[in-house]
Formats: sequence, C-alpha cells, structure tokens
Amino acid sequence: MKNSIKKFLRNDIDLLEEYKVFDSSGLIKLDAMENPFDFNVSCEFKNKSLSVNLNRYPDANCENLKKLLKSKNHLDDNFDVIIGNGSDELIQLICFAFLKPSNIVLCPHPSFSMYKKIAQVVGLKFKEVALKKDFSLDIELMLDTIKKIDPAVIFLAYPNNPTGNLWSKNDIDLIIKNTNGVVIIDEAYGDFSKQSYISEMRKYENLLIMKTFSKIGFAGLRVGYLFGKKEIIKELNKLRLPFNINSFSQKISEFHIIENDISKQTNEIIKNKELLIKELLKIDNITVFQSATNFVLFRLENKSADNVFEKLINQKILVKNMSNTPSLNNCLRVTVGTKNENELFIQSLKNSII
Amino acid sequence: MKNSIKKFLRNDIDLLEEYKVFDSSGLIKLDAMENPFDFNVSCEFKNKSLSVNLNRYPDANCENLKKLLKSKNHLDDNFDVIIGNGSDELIQLICFAFLKPSNIVLCPHPSFSMYKKIAQVVGLKFKEVALKKDFSLDIELMLDTIKKIDPAVIFLAYPNNPTGNLWSKNDIDLIIKNTNGVVIIDEAYGDFSKQSYISEMRKYENLLIMKTFSKIGFAGLRVGYLFGKKEIIKELNKLRLPFNINSFSQKISEFHIIENDISKQTNEIIKNKELLIKELLKIDNITVFQSATNFVLFRLENKSADNVFEKLINQKILVKNMSNTPSLNNCLRVTVGTKNENELFIQSLKNSII
Repeated sequence: MKNSIKKFLRNDIDLLEEYKVFDSSGLIKLDAMENPFDFNVSCEFKNKSLSVNLNRYPDANCENLKKLLKSKNHLDDNFDVIIGNGSDELIQLICFAFLKPSNIVLCPHPSFSMYKKIAQVVGLKFKEVALKKDFSLDIELMLDTIKKIDPAVIFLAYPNNPTGNLWSKNDIDLIIKNTNGVVIIDEAYGDFSKQSYISEMRKYENLLIMKTFSKIGFAGLRVGYLFGKKEIIKELNKLRLPFNINSFSQKISEFHIIENDISKQTNEIIKNKELLIKELLKIDNITVFQSATNFVLFRLENKSADNVFEKLINQKILVKNMSNTPSLNNCLRVTVGTKNENELFIQSLKNSII
Repeated sequence: MKNSIKKFLRNDIDLLEEYKVFDSSGLIKLDAMENPFDFNVSCEFKNKSLSVNLNRYPDANCENLKKLLKSKNHLDDNFDVIIGNGSDELIQLICFAFLKPSNIVLCPHPSFSMYKKIAQVVGLKFKEVALKKDFSLDIELMLDTIKKIDPAVIFLAYPNNPTGNLWSKNDIDLIIKNTNGVVIIDEAYGDFSKQSYISEMRKYENLLIMKTFSKIGFAGLRVGYLFGKKEIIKELNKLRLPFNINSFSQKISEFHIIENDISKQTNEIIKNKELLIKELLKIDNITVFQSATNFVLFRLENKSADNVFEKLINQKILVKNMSNTPSLNNCLRVTVGTKNENELFIQSLKNSII
C-alpha cells in the first residue's frame, strides 16, 4: 500500500485481525452452537428452485459470491472485493478504517446523504464542497480543498444522487491523482449510466469502486460490494462483522450473477426514463436535469415543491421531496417506474401544478 | 432517562435523528430508485408458503417484526425493541451510542469474544474482570472495578459463552444496582437455560436484554434483537443504518414468531445435552463444566487440547478449540448436535485421548 494511504489508516490497524473461520466442509459441525436440525427453505425464483439452509450460519466471508463478482468483473489477484449489508455498511467500514481524529472525509454537495450521516456516526470529520449550479464538479474548489485539508477519504457518486448527472471523467481523474487518501467511486447507478471506473483500478492505487444490487431489482436483499486493491480490502475486512450477509441474500445474489439477465429490465427502465423526461420537458415552468440514472430530478420554477409533493401524495404518488437540501430548493426527485406508473405520475404532476 | 446514563451518551446524540421513512402504503412508490418490476421469490417453509418481494427495500424499521416481538414478550409502551443484523450489530450500536473517550466497557472474562472485538473496532476502552476458577462471577472484584472505573456499559452473557454456566442472579442484581451505566444481559442461549431477565426490565432503568434467533434454528437469517427502555432504544435507533434487516429475514422471523413451535426442538437439544454430558463424565481425565446452553465446555486434564482437536478433525468432527483463551487452557467446546452426531463425537473423542 502506498505510504500516503497508510498514514491515514487508524493507528491500531496492525493489531487487528481478519475473523478466521475454520473450513468446515465435509465435517460434522459441532463448533458454532447452531441448531443441528435442518431448517431448509425451498425457494422458487425465476422458475428455478433453490434451497436456503437456515439453521447454519451463513458463509462468514461470502467466498462464493466474492469469487463470482471477481470473475464477472475480470479482477485479477491484485484486487479483492468485500460484501456489505447494503452499500451503507461499506461506507461505515471505510469510515472505520480511516478513523483518526485528524482525518477528514470530503464530498461534493449535494450527494448521497449517507456519506455524511455515517461519517458523523462513526466520528469522522466531514467536509463538503458545493457543486456548480449545473451540478458539475467545481474542480478548482475541489482541488484547492484537497490541497488544504488533505482528506483521508473522498466519496464520488458516479452518477451522482440526487442530481442524476455524471461528472466529467477528466475532473474525477484530477481528483484521484491529486489526493493522498482513497477515492471511492460509488457506482450505485452504474447499470443505468453504463459507465464504470472498474478498469481504471489498475491505474490508480487509491481507487475503490462501490456497487450495489439494490437499484437493479434486489433492494430487498441488502447487498453492496466494494472493489479495490487487495491490501486495502484486507484492512476493511479486519473491521467487518463476520456473517454480515445472511444465507438467503448470498444465495440469491450468486444466482443472479450466474443468470446474468438483468440488462433487459435495465434497458427498459432507461427507455422509460427517456419517455418520462420527454413528457416532463413538455410541462411549463419546470427545469428538468439530465439523468444517467433511474431517476429524474426537476425543479418547480414557480410552485412550492412542498405543496406539489403533497398534491402528488393525494393522488397516491410518492416521489422524494428534495426541497430541504441546500441548492435543491423546490426540487423533486422521481424514480422511473413502469410505463403506466410514469404516465400516472405525469398526469398527477400536471394536475398538481395547474 | 436517568441522568447517570445520559452522561455516558456520546456528546452529539441530541444532534442526531432517527431515519424517517415516509409511509408508502397504498402509494405508487417513485421515491427510492427501486426497480419497478416485481421480483418475487416464492418460498416454502414448514409446509407454508410465503412470498418475498425483492425489488423493494425492506421495511427500514422492521415495524411488523418489532410489534410481534413486543407482544410476544409482553412489553408495554415504556419499552421498545431494536433489531440487528445479528447480535453483533446490536453490540456495535450500543458501543456507538456510548462512544466517548472517557467511557469504558466492562465484561467478565472469559465471555463472548465479540464484546471486546467490537468495542475495540468502534474505539471504546475495554476492561475485563476474570471469572473465578469455577467460572462464577468474582462479584467483589466486579463491584470494586465498577466503583473504580465507572463503566458506561457492562455486557453480561446469561448464560455465559464459552463457559456455559448461569451466573448468580443475586450477583447480577448487585451489578445492575451498583453501576451508573447500562447493563446488557445477553440471553443468546436463554431458550436453553429457560431463564430470562425480561421481567426485571421494569425494575431497572439501566437494563437492556439482548436475544437472537441464531441458536434456535435461524443462524442463517442473522437476526438479533434488543429490548430496553423506550428512551434508550430511541438513541440507538439514531445510530442504526436504516434497512439493516433484509426482507427475507424479516419475513421468516415474523413467521417463526407467529408459528411459535420451536420449543420441541429446544427441549430435544436440552435432552441430548444431558446425555452428552453423561457420556463425557464417564471419560477419565476430563473435567466437564455445567451447561445451561446448547454446548458443553470440557477440559482435557492430561492431554493437549490442540492435539485432541486435530485428532477430532481427522475423524471429521469439528468442535471449538478454546485453548488459546486465558484460563481455558486445554479446553474444548462442543455444540450439542443430533443424537447420532453426539454419539459420533463421543466415540471420536475416546479414540483421540487413548
């Protein structure tokens, strides 16, 4: 690991150890206070049957799922992956690893709210740099801030939530090159943008890539994953609670990777989004922001978003009211639904702003 | 909340807020970037069918599961419950809530290893008080230590793991009464001891009770829960990652509470344990410790536990080698298996110590 990264790691990291689980395959397991009576749940998913064993602990390290993710993403042995109970837990692990009173987490703002919330809960200092008015990175200010505060961790959502846009690759490269700490590119919406930094990991030692199954159809599973240099993932593993991913979520995730048939739905959502944007653009006094995701942010130029939000609720449509976020005043964020849902939303929105 | 507890809480606790989720029942959900296409897994469990919806996020607050747990345990509105991704996450949440440089976590030793590991990861000071030679609490030393270090948090496993015994209720009462901080009674093995402190929560404001589904047949789900005074649980909730329990684990846990048929298996495990202990007692040069759990700790008096552990592995039996734990030299811990597994274990153990 580069010394510039190492110096940010918590002081006791070398005293901590990864949780070791004895390989029990083929053995009679009398080691872990499990109930010895089989509790199997038979599941049917996409016309295939699978069985989940409940009385045994899940694989503490998700070995099979990790192997599948590494191979699907063509990672060689210089890299590794760690699985989280949603990306949230991975953000928390990163904060744990870099937990030092002098360390600072840096983020553009507005961005995914959990970066700040989790840094705060863990006890890390947090610094925000405002995006430009068009939600692009204020790269000069970012680089100035990096120089000044020397952040241990930078989170960059790519594409960004809640704004929906992709930042310039050029700007992101400058950030990665000019910081001493780690940069996490959060590709939660990467399946919709079809852009990824995974292939850049070979180029930048301080780059980590975070992804999730939540946006492509598996929000109920709570599975996020993080790719990075082996030696960085190793440090995160020391801080991870073992058995953090239950047996069902591991099994369905593995199944999904093997099946690999999600792109049809993703493409349909992208198509629906384009239709949705087209309809939004037809409505007067709305500013629609570009989106490389499965949601669209828009601003009501002469209405109160709080008011429109309530009117939508009365028509049984729930969107996200972003109005309380600085620089997103009077903004609403709508997730792309089915064609029918989107049409209902457009009609209800029109009703709400008359 | 008693002031004596409040003073231990982290300084920023009043600035933090519980994660609020908008009640979406009956609404078209376009708020959370979920995939709009239904992904249902049909499951069959104990001859009943249930369906788990994967494309939506789980209930962020496990409202239904919490309601069932509260009602099953006859908790009134002065009390609340919080669900964790295993007890481990609850231990972590407790450590978060009491995260202050001056705070100390106190535990008897040996006890469940994650108390220490998690306190360390979160960055809390940790102090151990050795158990007596018979694994009972050294109550004088405990009370002296409490007086001296004024611990913010005390974890008491009841019954204790890895020793298997129940500590004196009288001693535990003294600890709860004489400490200013919170006491967590960890009843992970409470279904086997048939002893619980739940009814004592009315008596002691600083008492929290932790339980888990792992030992009674649901280790694969990763569901732990913690009961306590409403105002303490509220503080823990501010630090909990929302959506920490996936949809499947919530559903199966709810189902299990409604079904409520686990005691037959638990009783059979208890009966098997008694047989197992009887057989162990027949073997020369073994000290068998009493057990109110689903495992048995024993010491090899003239053999090396490392050596016997290896010999058991060679016969395909995996137990837990406790030898490296101070005061548990040459101890092994065996989980109670099926009758057949226990017989195989006894035979293999005999083969190993000839």
